Amino acid sequence: MKPMPFSRTPLLDGENANEKRSEILRYFVTTFDCYERLFETLNSEAAYYLKPIRLRHPLIFYFGHTATFFTNKLLLAGLFAERINPRLESIFAVGVDEMSWDDLDEMHYDWPGVEEVKAYRNELRQRVTALIETLPLTLPISWGHPWWPLLMGIEHERIHLETSSVLIRQHALEFVRPHENWIPWTETGPAPNNTLVNIPAGRIILNKSRSTGCHYGWDNEYGHHETDLPAFKASRFLVSNQEFLPFVEAGGYQTASWWEDEGQAWLGYTGNTHPPFWIKDGQNWCLRLMLQETTMPWDWPVEVNYHEARAWCNWKQAQTGASVRLPTEDEWYRLYDFAGLGELPADTRSNANIGLDYAASPCPVNRFAHGDLHDVAGNVWQWTETPIYPFEGFEVHPLYDDFTTPTFDGRHNLFKGGSWISCGNEALHSARYAFRRHFFQHAGFRYVTGAAQTEIHTSNYETDRLLSEYAEFHYGDEFFGVANFPKTLAQIAINAMGQRPALTALDLGCAAGRATFELARHFQSVTGVDFSARFIGLGTQMAEHGLLRYTLTDEGELVSYHERTLAALKLDHVKDKVSFSQGDACNLKPLWKDFDLVLAANLIDRLYDPEKFLAGIHARIKPGGLLMITSPYTWLSEHTPRAAWVGGYKQDGENRTTLDGLKVILERRFRLIQPPLDIPFVIRETRRKFQHTLSEVTLWERRHD
Amino acid sequence: MKPMPFSRTPLLDGENANEKRSEILRYFVTTFDCYERLFETLNSEAAYYLKPIRLRHPLIFYFGHTATFFTNKLLLAGLFAERINPRLESIFAVGVDEMSWDDLDEMHYDWPGVEEVKAYRNELRQRVTALIETLPLTLPISWGHPWWPLLMGIEHERIHLETSSVLIRQHALEFVRPHENWIPWTETGPAPNNTLVNIPAGRIILNKSRSTGCHYGWDNEYGHHETDLPAFKASRFLVSNQEFLPFVEAGGYQTASWWEDEGQAWLGYTGNTHPPFWIKDGQNWCLRLMLQETTMPWDWPVEVNYHEARAWCNWKQAQTGASVRLPTEDEWYRLYDFAGLGELPADTRSNANIGLDYAASPCPVNRFAHGDLHDVAGNVWQWTETPIYPFEGFEVHPLYDDFTTPTFDGRHNLFKGGSWISCGNEALHSARYAFRRHFFQHAGFRYVTGAAQTEIHTSNYETDRLLSEYAEFHYGDEFFGVANFPKTLAQIAINAMGQRPALTALDLGCAAGRATFELARHFQSVTGVDFSARFIGLGTQMAEHGLLRYTLTDEGELVSYHERTLAALKLDHVKDKVSFSQGDACNLKPLWKDFDLVLAANLIDRLYDPEKFLAGIHARIKPGGLLMITSPYTWLSEHTPRAAWVGGYKQDGENRTTLDGLKVILERRFRLIQPPLDIPFVIRETRRKFQHTLSEVTLWERRHD
Repeated sequence: MKPMPFSRTPLLDGENANEKRSEILRYFVTTFDCYERLFETLNSEAAYYLKPIRLRHPLIFYFGHTATFFTNKLLLAGLFAERINPRLESIFAVGVDEMSWDDLDEMHYDWPGVEEVKAYRNELRQRVTALIETLPLTLPISWGHPWWPLLMGIEHERIHLETSSVLIRQHALEFVRPHENWIPWTETGPAPNNTLVNIPAGRIILNKSRSTGCHYGWDNEYGHHETDLPAFKASRFLVSNQEFLPFVEAGGYQTASWWEDEGQAWLGYTGNTHPPFWIKDGQNWCLRLMLQETTMPWDWPVEVNYHEARAWCNWKQAQTGASVRLPTEDEWYRLYDFAGLGELPADTRSNANIGLDYAASPCPVNRFAHGDLHDVAGNVWQWTETPIYPFEGFEVHPLYDDFTTPTFDGRHNLFKGGSWISCGNEALHSARYAFRRHFFQHAGFRYVTGAAQTEIHTSNYETDRLLSEYAEFHYGDEFFGVANFPKTLAQIAINAMGQRPALTALDLGCAAGRATFELARHFQSVTGVDFSARFIGLGTQMAEHGLLRYTLTDEGELVSYHERTLAALKLDHVKDKVSFSQGDACNLKPLWKDFDLVLAANLIDRLYDPEKFLAGIHARIKPGGLLMITSPYTWLSEHTPRAAWVGGYKQDGENRTTLDGLKVILERRFRLIQPPLDIPFVIRETRRKFQHTLSEVTLWERRHD
Repeated sequence: MKPMPFSRTPLLDGENANEKRSEILRYFVTTFDCYERLFETLNSEAAYYLKPIRLRHPLIFYFGHTATFFTNKLLLAGLFAERINPRLESIFAVGVDEMSWDDLDEMHYDWPGVEEVKAYRNELRQRVTALIETLPLTLPISWGHPWWPLLMGIEHERIHLETSSVLIRQHALEFVRPHENWIPWTETGPAPNNTLVNIPAGRIILNKSRSTGCHYGWDNEYGHHETDLPAFKASRFLVSNQEFLPFVEAGGYQTASWWEDEGQAWLGYTGNTHPPFWIKDGQNWCLRLMLQETTMPWDWPVEVNYHEARAWCNWKQAQTGASVRLPTEDEWYRLYDFAGLGELPADTRSNANIGLDYAASPCPVNRFAHGDLHDVAGNVWQWTETPIYPFEGFEVHPLYDDFTTPTFDGRHNLFKGGSWISCGNEALHSARYAFRRHFFQHAGFRYVTGAAQTEIHTSNYETDRLLSEYAEFHYGDEFFGVANFPKTLAQIAINAMGQRPALTALDLGCAAGRATFELARHFQSVTGVDFSARFIGLGTQMAEHGLLRYTLTDEGELVSYHERTLAALKLDHVKDKVSFSQGDACNLKPLWKDFDLVLAANLIDRLYDPEKFLAGIHARIKPGGLLMITSPYTWLSEHTPRAAWVGGYKQDGENRTTLDGLKVILERRFRLIQPPLDIPFVIRETRRKFQHTLSEVTLWERRHD
């Protein structure tokens, strides 16, 4: 037991910059020291080079990696002028992030010696220390502040402190030794009976801001999230080894029906029959801790992956008849509020098994009470049902653009609360760490009963190049001073409508749907129709979730991350007036008729039979209603057979423009009500390359028959 | 013989608009009448529908065509509101312009009846008459004037008056009848001995202007052309049937060596053994005129195509040992000036067999003296050696953009001087008609001796889409207010050079070469190098001829015609300082070294091995000299294998931009002398579609070793 707690992640504002400088230096040094003390538990050179698990690098990599990360981020930020050791920094740059249990790592490395890495770490320590001692400092330190990369490096090392401790726990016992700084809890006894606690309905509000200095945060913590939760019940304690045992004894690992599909696949791959750190010693169960084995502490929390936790809940539900499941992320925040927890105290040990405040292992599940509950924070992480997703307003940090984004794939579940070794940012209420569902950390679970889970979050970033370009074209930035094109078209259309009735409009070839929304400012209902179901998906997502996220190509393979919301475009009030459907402009469904306006923007030169569309569209428009056509007339035989072009060729020896062709086809049913108009649009392809096009707008009034 | 000459093409300025209106009405009516009188020579319905020659339409087409042409141009100009007869106007719109003697016309037409076409012509006549009587008229009438299309229609009909007279002459005798308005000359006698006349050196100047009203002109007549001609000798008379006969009798048509390759091919196709209108009647030669055959008038000009004329010259040269050839177009202008000719008198017959002033055939070659020469104008057209080409400043007329441009192909030779039936514009000094070299009109030739022909004109319009786009990108219009890119780059480079030596510069990846020229404003010599020999061709042509012509896609298949000159860009004074070569930036020839500046604009992301180029380029630059790189960093694996990209990917976990990569590769040999700069450029794809791109400019000074 240490007299003073291990240093906490600093508050990043305050009045006294010199004191803050000292605090951050201390935070760096203690973190660096602690990380190296962790590696002192390895008892041989071999322990550094043999992989604890086949899917990840050996520990020598992680020993060097945190120093290289510092170097890279400080170089990127311009705080370091040059590399310390290019060779080591190439070796230590990229971890094997186990994204799938069947990704086999077949790479071969020529690892450096431990002493060489220690020397490298020392050099880095000196440079960072000098930087902290000399770099000008004004408070507060926020997201874009010059000191942010220093905090980033320290917090990154704290993450690896925990993940390396897991790897060491996964190493064979022969490679590790007990260590005076890493003594486990010894307290144990019979597990308490778990009971359910009523959690009343309530609202959770998350609103971490990039512009104020509070604590360091990773990209995924920022933004706005607010929701009302109905009442539910939560287990008072984390599920203990004792409470998990009947599932194991009932053959839970051999009964496929308790497991979700992905869990079954994992089980088939591993052949596991019990939690991974459990060891069967004859008739008795033991438990592997970080550096030793011990007789099973039945009142400690069981440590499992998501699949095991979920299978246990399924089994439990069948036993009890009650709905038993894992909490959502939001429910965990509700538990935290209900328990009345706050952040860890700076200079005393906390009332939780967290932050290395006590010892180097879990402890009994009834050791730390938080109101009616225990272990809302600390002891082991608690799996949730929630795949990680970005809050509204999410942005990537320019110095670390792939910290979170690769995990926005619906396959990485959040866990919350932290473990005995979670410290720094990890111990904060706002921390959001997510891992593949089969992954092991110091993690267990609590269960809840009550209403079925209703959260649906979108985490997907559209990465298809065409769809992303159109998302940006419709909802994103303006370039070269050219106003947003679909918005401009909608304004022209609305102006042209004048006092005409404005019940319904059809946005044909709506693509990502921006004009559909813009028209809904004026029309009572607007239908967006596109041939491409993938485009329709963008508009639908915008209508349902109020936001779109996508990556854009910046240069070569480098991308940037973008989020656009209806709210920011002041369109959230119209989202119930729009609908999107897949459809073929040359073969429209009968139900689409009696429109006051049909907009066909950049459509006709992409149709396989534009004349068929043009010759029939009057039947969809009320007499006196408008047809608005815009096109750059970019006829290409890959979209429209040459014989079907409306213009753009010599006919009987004379030039026939598309406008000529439109007049020939449309003038029997329509009247051109104003001169044609060229409206520009810009589509971004890369950070430096754009399509810049003029689309000719013609407005036609349907004649009264 | 008519008491008054057939109406002349009107002067288009003057003080009295009402008189001009009357004159133009008279010009229209007499033209229309004359054309119809020509068709009175057909003696049956069959004569209208059977083709005189297999490669062209039957005469019914030409009977209707001139009226349809009127309709189309007047519709296009907005002077007619609607068509007269859409069905006929579709049938009569496009002639079969015999572009090649092996283009076989396999089209089938459902031709209308002669009476229907006459009724159609009458309707057109009434409408045009009404238009001429009522359309407001201010003088002068020039190129863009509302009355221009009326003149265009009349002059077009006068062209067809002549070409139809040739078709009638090519019809079998059974289809034609003598006609009181089409009586041939009867005067004939022994041919005079041809002799050579000395033509002193002199300058010709052509400068027909679109902005003043003088006479109607076709697009190819306008622009500026001025040249000094050395002295030469020209035959006093056109070559007569008599003078041509020994060639025929010597088996000239059976001796391939007298014929150019193209002439041999034509001869092989036709099997001709004598001029086409010659007829062998037993031992005697006869001659087919328009409506009858006659005993051979030996003192009339022989009528042949270019190939026959050229073969005769080749044969004649072998007989005499003197250089005998056809005149160039310029030499014909010199003959005209030397003879002291002027345009035809308006109200008396001219001193030439032209404009239907006398009779409906050629006449003796010694009938009309023009100074020391005879028949400088009139009798029959005179073939020249000159393929038609545009004068500097050429533009197409917007109402008739394919009058001349399809003949700018090096395969259509000009003839000059006019024939007995050439009237209207055809009879002017400035008239420039060109036909495929195997084509028959009422045409013969005069020969010249003296200096070899030295004229080289470029008539080619670049039509390859990529090359045309780059020609416009380098030498053409600016779009969206973005300044010319290569010019801007050259200015940046020249500014950066400061007081450094400026002997030589290398423009690597010079494309169409504009920057090469622009750099030559500052450097003593500049070499443009590109991987593409086709691009090099553009720069070379600009350097050698001072101009480039190209078509640009406007919409679909519709194109516009563009001419750009060094003079207009104020670059003509540097053209001797530039040279262009094909070369590979990744494997440069040893001779390219010791440059004060190397510019690599939009190059590196199109190289197959950019690092090889970057790592070696210092060896081509003097110490202290500059390397200027610009690129939008649009890396594409089709140009550059992924492994060879300089940046635009994650390296060791961090973003590596191309600028990062450039620094890594270049900094050992170079010093970045100013911050990177984004310079925009725009490439026009169609009238409405553009690429708009930012290219990052970096300037590097080669270190002193």
